[in-house]
Amino acid sequence: MGEEMIISKKQVILKHYVSGYPKESDMELKNSTIKLNVPQGSNVVILKNLYLSCDPYMRGRMKKIEGSYIDSFTPGSPITGFGVAKVLESGDSNFQKGDLVWGMTGWEEYSIVTPTDQNYLFKINDKDVPFLTVLESLVRMPGMTAYVGFYEICSPKKGETVFVSAASGAVGQLVGQFAKMLDCYVVVGSAGSKEKNKFGFDEAFNFKEEQDLRCRRYFPNGIDIYFENVGGKMLDAILLNMKLHGRIAACGMISQHNLEHTEGVHNLFYLMISKRIHMEGFVIFDYFHLYSKYLEMIIPKIKAGNVVYVEDVVEGLELL
Amino acid sequence: MGEEMIISKKQVILKHYVSGYPKESDMELKNSTIKLNVPQGSNVVILKNLYLSCDPYMRGRMKKIEGSYIDSFTPGSPITGFGVAKVLESGDSNFQKGDLVWGMTGWEEYSIVTPTDQNYLFKINDKDVPFLTVLESLVRMPGMTAYVGFYEICSPKKGETVFVSAASGAVGQLVGQFAKMLDCYVVVGSAGSKEKNKFGFDEAFNFKEEQDLRCRRYFPNGIDIYFENVGGKMLDAILLNMKLHGRIAACGMISQHNLEHTEGVHNLFYLMISKRIHMEGFVIFDYFHLYSKYLEMIIPKIKAGNVVYVEDVVEGLELL
Repeated sequence: MGEEMIISKKQVILKHYVSGYPKESDMELKNSTIKLNVPQGSNVVILKNLYLSCDPYMRGRMKKIEGSYIDSFTPGSPITGFGVAKVLESGDSNFQKGDLVWGMTGWEEYSIVTPTDQNYLFKINDKDVPFLTVLESLVRMPGMTAYVGFYEICSPKKGETVFVSAASGAVGQLVGQFAKMLDCYVVVGSAGSKEKNKFGFDEAFNFKEEQDLRCRRYFPNGIDIYFENVGGKMLDAILLNMKLHGRIAACGMISQHNLEHTEGVHNLFYLMISKRIHMEGFVIFDYFHLYSKYLEMIIPKIKAGNVVYVEDVVEGLELL
Repeated sequence: MGEEMIISKKQVILKHYVSGYPKESDMELKNSTIKLNVPQGSNVVILKNLYLSCDPYMRGRMKKIEGSYIDSFTPGSPITGFGVAKVLESGDSNFQKGDLVWGMTGWEEYSIVTPTDQNYLFKINDKDVPFLTVLESLVRMPGMTAYVGFYEICSPKKGETVFVSAASGAVGQLVGQFAKMLDCYVVVGSAGSKEKNKFGFDEAFNFKEEQDLRCRRYFPNGIDIYFENVGGKMLDAILLNMKLHGRIAACGMISQHNLEHTEGVHNLFYLMISKRIHMEGFVIFDYFHLYSKYLEMIIPKIKAGNVVYVEDVVEGLELL
């Protein structure tokens, strides 16, 4: 065992459970210390975090929830989430000092990852992909989510009509591009219309300004696939314009996270039945066995420049 | 061509579209006449109706609806629905005088079935099954609905926990029995508890008297399969008690038919996603290709007395 190395680290702490829209004051930046040595016999991995991802599902973890696929954050502790990191020390033979990894880590400069968390720690072998942040958003969790949700849940067919809500997000922008690769007609609901031109989608609209959330204007003959990131009123309206045997992949329902009482969805009856809708919720943690298959598909496309992406990167924990 | 035969027939006419609970005054019994000859060159089939089925989906047809799997009834015309009938004359080579058939017919003593409707007209070959009404409810449409909904939509596994709402109906009582054949733990929500003893279900309760619609009392560890006949509040509550990777077959949502404004379902968020729920609406018309497979399964069970049924039969159109 070498000399003990204790250094200071910055952390983003969740102060308390959050209701309504999260505010900066719900979190605080704190200084802490970390021992950079792996204790004898321990299999922890010590990480220097390089990039941290801020994803919609994390809003759910800011509440006291039970029975979800992932625990609530612990008030008083650092926020956790997906990130890209470098291994500083490792007690686990799967990881070596100097490895680049991605997986569940903390919103802090350094993290100690316990063996349980290592279910979600993957070594990055594809070092020739341009940038780590692109890796982060495209190759990793959001990319896998888009891949699984579109191909595994939606059973897409060439030329179908596809609507993606919240398509300016990391997942939505990829779902739309996967759909275009299948010659689908793709409309996205997003914050603006810049996604249409950048990604080659057929139409884009700002859902906050749209008069008719059913999207009849864009889909006069209905929607085959709805990739659902929004929920609530949007889901209710889209149900009215789904085609027979339509599929809804429930990836997230971001519109509902900050509400005290969630919106009711009224159009399940009778539309689920008469239109034979298949609606399925999914969580990426169930699909990591498909990760290498996904990499085989996406990496050549990134290298060839056939996948476009918009990233929103800030430097420093203070700005997260 | 033989002599023209015109006889009188009684019909049940829907007077107008119905809102709220249907009343007897929404229908009327009328006398009409029918020509019992098939016009030269026509391929119509003339039926003497023997048994008519009264099914929950028919409530939907009493409203002006668009884009459903089946048209609204036509005010001023006889109600249509599934029935068992005898062929009196046939211009279609698939049917001969004297054949027993089942399929879409009218609430009237005699019906003329046009070629389009014959998509839903099947010859009855299994004449050795005890009674025509049993045939009607078990072997035909409701039986096929139970079979398809349970086996094709719910992907049931031996020993799973199954909840069937509105299980006193023709479909529900069979779903429960199919589930018991797979050694599932079966609880039914119904009008009373007589179904429990008669059908060998594990528990039964009257949903109108139940304090906790989540059914935690019956399923402390959650529900794998929910066979949904009710919708609204019941669906909302059951979502809270579904197990991970639970399946919901949306067969009907009878609680919503008579409401002016349907109840909102609030628990889709975040439960659909965190529990990876698969929810699918289905309509029996898509599955008639499985009909012979279904008969192979059900007829030996009926003959062996392994399938039990409760029928509610009245004689005469006046009492329908």
